[in-house]
Amino acid sequence: MSAPNRATLWGRVLVDELAKGGLEAVCIAPGSRSTPLTVAFAAHPEIDVYSHLDERSAAFFALGRARRTGEPTALVCTSGTAAANFHPAVMEADQARVPLLVLTADRPAELRDSGANQTVDQVKLYGDAVRWYAELPDPEADERKVRSLRTTAARALAETSGPDPGPVHLNCPFRKPLEPLEVPDAVPDAFAETLAGTGRTGAFVETETGSMALEADRLRPLLNALEDAERPLIVAGPADPAAISGLEPADVVTVADHVGAPILADPLSNLRFGPHVESDAGDRHVYGGYDGYISALPAPDVVVRFGASPTSKPLRHALGDSDARQFLLDPAGAWREATFTATELLATDPDSAFETLAESLEAATGSTDTTSDDEWLARFDAAERTHWRVRDDALTVDALAADPFEGAVLATVFEAAPDPATVFVSNSMPIRDVDRFGRPRAADLTVLGNRGASGIDGITSTALGAGSATDEPLVLVTGDLAFYHDSNGLLAVERCGVDATIVLLDNDGGGIFHKLPIEAFEPPFTDQFKTPHGLEFEPLGDLYGLEFERVDAAEFRAAYQASLECEGTQILAVNFESDANHRRRDALSERVRTELTDE
Amino acid sequence: MSAPNRATLWGRVLVDELAKGGLEAVCIAPGSRSTPLTVAFAAHPEIDVYSHLDERSAAFFALGRARRTGEPTALVCTSGTAAANFHPAVMEADQARVPLLVLTADRPAELRDSGANQTVDQVKLYGDAVRWYAELPDPEADERKVRSLRTTAARALAETSGPDPGPVHLNCPFRKPLEPLEVPDAVPDAFAETLAGTGRTGAFVETETGSMALEADRLRPLLNALEDAERPLIVAGPADPAAISGLEPADVVTVADHVGAPILADPLSNLRFGPHVESDAGDRHVYGGYDGYISALPAPDVVVRFGASPTSKPLRHALGDSDARQFLLDPAGAWREATFTATELLATDPDSAFETLAESLEAATGSTDTTSDDEWLARFDAAERTHWRVRDDALTVDALAADPFEGAVLATVFEAAPDPATVFVSNSMPIRDVDRFGRPRAADLTVLGNRGASGIDGITSTALGAGSATDEPLVLVTGDLAFYHDSNGLLAVERCGVDATIVLLDNDGGGIFHKLPIEAFEPPFTDQFKTPHGLEFEPLGDLYGLEFERVDAAEFRAAYQASLECEGTQILAVNFESDANHRRRDALSERVRTELTDE
Repeated sequence: MSAPNRATLWGRVLVDELAKGGLEAVCIAPGSRSTPLTVAFAAHPEIDVYSHLDERSAAFFALGRARRTGEPTALVCTSGTAAANFHPAVMEADQARVPLLVLTADRPAELRDSGANQTVDQVKLYGDAVRWYAELPDPEADERKVRSLRTTAARALAETSGPDPGPVHLNCPFRKPLEPLEVPDAVPDAFAETLAGTGRTGAFVETETGSMALEADRLRPLLNALEDAERPLIVAGPADPAAISGLEPADVVTVADHVGAPILADPLSNLRFGPHVESDAGDRHVYGGYDGYISALPAPDVVVRFGASPTSKPLRHALGDSDARQFLLDPAGAWREATFTATELLATDPDSAFETLAESLEAATGSTDTTSDDEWLARFDAAERTHWRVRDDALTVDALAADPFEGAVLATVFEAAPDPATVFVSNSMPIRDVDRFGRPRAADLTVLGNRGASGIDGITSTALGAGSATDEPLVLVTGDLAFYHDSNGLLAVERCGVDATIVLLDNDGGGIFHKLPIEAFEPPFTDQFKTPHGLEFEPLGDLYGLEFERVDAAEFRAAYQASLECEGTQILAVNFESDANHRRRDALSERVRTELTDE
Repeated sequence: MSAPNRATLWGRVLVDELAKGGLEAVCIAPGSRSTPLTVAFAAHPEIDVYSHLDERSAAFFALGRARRTGEPTALVCTSGTAAANFHPAVMEADQARVPLLVLTADRPAELRDSGANQTVDQVKLYGDAVRWYAELPDPEADERKVRSLRTTAARALAETSGPDPGPVHLNCPFRKPLEPLEVPDAVPDAFAETLAGTGRTGAFVETETGSMALEADRLRPLLNALEDAERPLIVAGPADPAAISGLEPADVVTVADHVGAPILADPLSNLRFGPHVESDAGDRHVYGGYDGYISALPAPDVVVRFGASPTSKPLRHALGDSDARQFLLDPAGAWREATFTATELLATDPDSAFETLAESLEAATGSTDTTSDDEWLARFDAAERTHWRVRDDALTVDALAADPFEGAVLATVFEAAPDPATVFVSNSMPIRDVDRFGRPRAADLTVLGNRGASGIDGITSTALGAGSATDEPLVLVTGDLAFYHDSNGLLAVERCGVDATIVLLDNDGGGIFHKLPIEAFEPPFTDQFKTPHGLEFEPLGDLYGLEFERVDAAEFRAAYQASLECEGTQILAVNFESDANHRRRDALSERVRTELTDE
């Protein structure tokens, strides 16, 4: 590795090692101090470079890509406030276990806190939100330093991706010249021939990280509890990115089948959709309508939970009110259970645990039989049927024409999504509506959301980043506030070459606040909570060269299918009255519960 | 102070005390957890509430308001990534000494790190960027707790505004109910009658904070140095917000006059423009063209510096290369001097120091006379004349029609700005062009920029926030990247009722990179540094209901004057070739230096 000066050497060695360590993509926002990194990334043949102009959107795009792939994506920015613009996405990556490698350029140590321009305190900028923070040493063609740099690159990637994946922050000070200008004697020719200079054929340090697993005998208490349970329940919360490819649905289904447990699958669990949702004989394995009926059913006596906290509030309340034994499986041994009713925490990868449980149960087949209450599964089946029937009855095309309903659009998005597809769902109401109206389906849908910190920021960028990582069709469902918040993210459609169908549920403000008691306090309800903005978003289509179509709810299905079948990115905006929508949601849930009680 | 529940009590008491302490404005982004704060602010008759939908823009708007007024502005957001979106503006407030009171709602302690929704680690979220961090105690109608809350409000305001003003962060945990719902016995009726409940007539703790001052005898070394100097120089860098109203230009002029020192006034120093720039007899006091000629003049032997680091790189280099005695005056005793050539640091408010120096010099008039070299001021005068003559010759309307030049637009913006006016200038090239082409003028122009961390983020919002605090006409000069970056900020024009003339210098990408050596490296220069985006911004006018006009550089003056004379917000976009512009800047500087050398 030769280089015309120290900063260039630093950039080249770092990027060389990151590529050898498997890094495949980087999002870069333009800047001067970061020149050594940018130049090295741009010149590397094996790393895809995505250029963004707003660091906040850049970071969410990288987050989306890493979320979809489960593999680290890198981020580069210059010094100063640029780095602070990464913070929201770093926070989400922390909460949602998304591997993100943040490289912030910085001024050299002697300029810090000196009043120098664009110089801020970047040391540990993201606090405890990162898995690892390190500051690179001053660039210099010194063998030990460069070996440390190569090692740091390997370590940084590994730290993003252990049992508890997440963001890593490398702060990278550079001194001028930042460009690849020749500086005599800065990097001696002989240095290129040293081990530090050449690196190794592969990564300087090949890293392998194990995952948490419990052997069969350590899982025995869980197995026994499931086998002995009368009303066992499996609850799959939002999946960590690593679980999207890692968890084998068949194992969960095998366990559920053997012990007679319904699988309640959060829309983000990666279990709500896929070939496993029903058996070949048509037996239901996965339940998706629980938000509407869980409160009307008996409490479980044994619960197995994995993934993050479920989106459904009725489900969380049901679990919180229960005195069941509750086993929480977590690959990092984390305590992600805010109802505080877990009785056992098992620090294990759920995939490993379910594989072991499935093997144990299959090996024992014939010798034991499920003790689960016959009524138990039957009641869930009936409830699930009722839930979807009520939904279907209510959401006829005629009804929609008379009374547009956001839930119906969400239902259609999932029913009519191509197989396979990646569907990204915004926070606030869309994710809640998927939870209620997104019926389990045998299609291979990868459903993603930013459910770590549940912000409405960076939604468009995260979706486009996820889309950049796959050839599958990409669908984004977003509300108007989230769409406004990350309007800058639309630039990536053309700039990063991502095709998407963007479904914009436009109810002119924060519809979710109708769900809350603040609705009754006017003022300040409208001005400070619902905050109608009156924006007609068509001009954003013009600005970013995207097709923008405003469609009636009753015509949504046709427009959606047309968009999925054509090239380019279309924004399909549908108008709603959030007030009426909330009455409608309540009425539907009420009707399901009434029917179940009457049965 | 009665309240239906504890959270409501907390919001009311806090807002009551902040108002009594003098807080006049708050920017609020909608959210649920922050309901107790939002409801209390919205109900308070004496606090202006600005509602924003993007927290990043909200924070910059608050920053702009506080920057213009020098008075604290508050910010409210819900828990989670919302708070991280404030980070860029908090960073700028830290660097630029802007008083900002950040109130982040949070989940109660028992929900933290529990996997609960929208719950992140907000403790010390902004690290060392804030002057004070405190976490409010759990709301409760307890007398000591409520007295502490009232005291905390007073203290928080004081901490934003001491000798080193800046951001303060109060993290505010709330437990449900968040809305003003009646909770029996939560706040006993009797509590309202206690001292904690009623508070005092005025602030619970009236706070007064002194400022740094040195008595005349402690300023004697500076006075002697100035009197004995042959080539004394006064350098006014970008002003702290407190100095915009605090510093008396007449005192600086008196000192300069007595000792024969030119005042080199940064465009953000608040000294470049105003009635003091020339004497009644037409003698020049303030010099603005130094960026073009300082390198061609002799070095000073005594320098007095105050404000932040000057924008002009030639000036910084001249000071850095000098072996003059350099006195640095700073109201917080901070070491804001990145050339590391200061020889004396005086921890004193510059206004106090100049007042004392002026008094000493006036008292001694007759007994001492300036020792400054006769040639010294004459050379600056000649250089200044040459600089502006070269500029005027080059920037004729004919020349502009043939060859549009960004510097000419900046010159016009300042020449034709109404008196008084507030002019906000973006970072990157606009601020550098004001420095070169903004001629000192007797008009009362308050010129602002985000020169703390010098980001291109939040520019539009900061400008509109500044405009919200004054009845003066508001002008914003911004580049296309900054305009794109904070496009969301335009929502505040209508939402917050701010009229502005927005001058958009559109050179399709990062023109500043042509100034840097990276220009010679293609690739990656165009794709990763200049980053042309091809955006035609007209649709943003449609989206936000603003007049958008694309004008030729030669016609800019007329369009600008027309905009200043009419109501509403106009965006005047002027297209430029950044490459050609940079050659032009270099040629102009070169011509000034050549003429000065030939003279």
